[in-house]
Amino acid sequence: MQQKDIEGFFADSHALDLEDYLLLDYYFECQGDPRLAAAHFCSEQSTAQWQRIGVEEDFRPRFGAKVIDLQVLGQQQHLSYALHTPLAGPFQSCQVKIAHPHANFGPKLPNLLSAVCGEGVFFTPGIPVVKLLDIQFPETYLAAFEGPKFGIQGLRERLDVYDRPIFFGVIKPNIGLGPEPFAQAGYAGWLGGLDIAKDDEMLADVSWSTLEERSRLLGQARRQAEAKTGRRKIYLAYITDEVDRLLELHDIAVANGANALMVNAMTTGLSAVRWLRKHTRVPLVGHFPMIAAFSRLPHYGLHAQVMTTLQRLAGLDVIIMPGFGQRMMTPETEVLDCVTACTRALGAIKPSLPAPGGSDWAGTLGDVYAKVGSIDFGFVPGRGVFSHPLGPAGGAASICQAWEAIAQGIPLAEYAQTRLELRRAIEAFA
Amino acid sequence: MQQKDIEGFFADSHALDLEDYLLLDYYFECQGDPRLAAAHFCSEQSTAQWQRIGVEEDFRPRFGAKVIDLQVLGQQQHLSYALHTPLAGPFQSCQVKIAHPHANFGPKLPNLLSAVCGEGVFFTPGIPVVKLLDIQFPETYLAAFEGPKFGIQGLRERLDVYDRPIFFGVIKPNIGLGPEPFAQAGYAGWLGGLDIAKDDEMLADVSWSTLEERSRLLGQARRQAEAKTGRRKIYLAYITDEVDRLLELHDIAVANGANALMVNAMTTGLSAVRWLRKHTRVPLVGHFPMIAAFSRLPHYGLHAQVMTTLQRLAGLDVIIMPGFGQRMMTPETEVLDCVTACTRALGAIKPSLPAPGGSDWAGTLGDVYAKVGSIDFGFVPGRGVFSHPLGPAGGAASICQAWEAIAQGIPLAEYAQTRLELRRAIEAFA
Repeated sequence: MQQKDIEGFFADSHALDLEDYLLLDYYFECQGDPRLAAAHFCSEQSTAQWQRIGVEEDFRPRFGAKVIDLQVLGQQQHLSYALHTPLAGPFQSCQVKIAHPHANFGPKLPNLLSAVCGEGVFFTPGIPVVKLLDIQFPETYLAAFEGPKFGIQGLRERLDVYDRPIFFGVIKPNIGLGPEPFAQAGYAGWLGGLDIAKDDEMLADVSWSTLEERSRLLGQARRQAEAKTGRRKIYLAYITDEVDRLLELHDIAVANGANALMVNAMTTGLSAVRWLRKHTRVPLVGHFPMIAAFSRLPHYGLHAQVMTTLQRLAGLDVIIMPGFGQRMMTPETEVLDCVTACTRALGAIKPSLPAPGGSDWAGTLGDVYAKVGSIDFGFVPGRGVFSHPLGPAGGAASICQAWEAIAQGIPLAEYAQTRLELRRAIEAFA
Repeated sequence: MQQKDIEGFFADSHALDLEDYLLLDYYFECQGDPRLAAAHFCSEQSTAQWQRIGVEEDFRPRFGAKVIDLQVLGQQQHLSYALHTPLAGPFQSCQVKIAHPHANFGPKLPNLLSAVCGEGVFFTPGIPVVKLLDIQFPETYLAAFEGPKFGIQGLRERLDVYDRPIFFGVIKPNIGLGPEPFAQAGYAGWLGGLDIAKDDEMLADVSWSTLEERSRLLGQARRQAEAKTGRRKIYLAYITDEVDRLLELHDIAVANGANALMVNAMTTGLSAVRWLRKHTRVPLVGHFPMIAAFSRLPHYGLHAQVMTTLQRLAGLDVIIMPGFGQRMMTPETEVLDCVTACTRALGAIKPSLPAPGGSDWAGTLGDVYAKVGSIDFGFVPGRGVFSHPLGPAGGAASICQAWEAIAQGIPLAEYAQTRLELRRAIEAFA
């Protein structure tokens, strides 16, 4: 690219009709002039060659991605990560905001991903280190998406629970337990106070626990628990599978009494989730396998909040994400960014329920509540319910008791003095 | 996990029926005892809780992932990457081989990915840095996959080209050029000697270039080029879109004369590709957007050869991958690993044609050939054909001339003395 070509990839945001553009925030580390690097970056992710040889034309005004803000953050002698590149320092670390014309590809998730984290973004000359930090969408683009069918409000209505977090429990042992004892464990969890008993995100439709049998037994157990407790309950069945089976598995599970379904959004594909959303009769829950592979490093890959936003766009009513605490190796600010991405304004798209999880038990509930700063979250213990010394019913009860203490402003240890299940949880897990 | 529990996640490989297991190679950096970390690593990716409370049972023999080899590579005070973790050094860097029972989830790509790069792998306590290096599959697992429908041999038969690499050209300008001039460019490329003229991996089914119109015009142009040259030609149409449109777009494009189809495997989803493979009547080509987001760092994420292998399993006949040269920021050994992953033994699964690409032109062909060490590769220039000073026909001719020189062992510069197109390519791109 020649010096005179650079200007074609820069624009004043006031001069653009922003309804025509996605706004993309990136961090990058580049060698040489940041303006030249940023122009290349825009060229590579949009119209890499903006005219035919020998033809007077310029595709950049309509099709070019354009830098609307470029901040040089600093200079460093080495890249943040040792990489295979012959480039030598100094490198400039930059944050850039790019207006990317969405008519280049349209409101399609695979094409959106290809544009914002594809070859252009990761193979721009002079930019070996890059991270997509955030995306903002104009209303016209969002209007093409369905988003969550139920959202937080719809899920609360299905459970008739409005005044507290939603209590999930991941039935354990997660792999290896046959459908009958699995259903017994779920039933005990519901009786103890779980709203939602769920399959683990590894528990497929397999010979030793077919979805047909598992959902039939869990559906029955769920109805029995509802009859026994007088409360509405959800069995959240996991249906991640090859995409040409998703709708069939939806139909089997729902017919058998599963009243919410979980998929691993990234490994199944965001677009497959969007397809399932068009078909679904029950709330959809997303889990996070594979996302950490490209979101953990502070300066490379994609920020997790981008994936949260895309999962919401795809139509997930609940988004399970790595939560607080050392175990999940995720900065608190990043968890909160992902929580916010579930509920911030996004056109007419409904909010998703954030479910930040990881090694939770009764004793972590207050901390999660304080950090989220709202009751609109899902609490997703596994062993904290199903490895409780008094069994799943005791484990679930300990969660409910913890919430009673929090709601009444009573210290957990004090409240536990007269609550056996909570006391045993503290003894086992604290 | 207690010391006595660790042994349950270790095994002697000779004591296992390896037909029941995937073999997974990982690099990781752990705090503390590597054996304990590796046992946790296996537990988290399989049966995280291997018995019910109060029940005498052990799911590990059947359902547990098991360490069959553990090498401590070294000790380091700091992790290879600065991460959000309270763990303090020293850290042990390790390479581990794990036997993972595939009956835990079955021959399904989304579930396979969830197992080998899911929550268990990236959130094991004490292992903040991890990279999946390779997967080996037993015959019984592979037998459930279809793999490429045509493979290298089938593609060669369709082109009637057996004695040289396959010459692709990415029609440029890639974004913004309407179907009519786009078809003219493709036609010129075929006349100049391209085997395959292709859409860019960003060129969707959009209002300014619908797949219907584009494939109709390119299909006509392809037939005209075949009539004119007496050689078989392929128009490779790009159909990445929401997955519920893939089969429809296949049918439109193929009916209109597209005789191969390209999808971005990761952004569309590997499982969607596998579904398309069951339906397709033409060869399928995969492109690589998003893969670099989790494969570029030497010690974190997934090795690119894993994605190559999974794309082959999903049924792609050609796999376009980041190639040689500084531009693509990929170590030569990694490119070669990916090339090998296309063709190494994989049960009855056909080999895929590797197409290592990036800023290619006539002058890079000899180097790619030398490095691949075989004629079985696709050569995928873009601007090297379509920005050639003499136009696409001249650009394509320069590629063919370069191959003639290579095949005859004549230095390029010497051969170019009597070949105008090659000479102009050297002047423009060297």
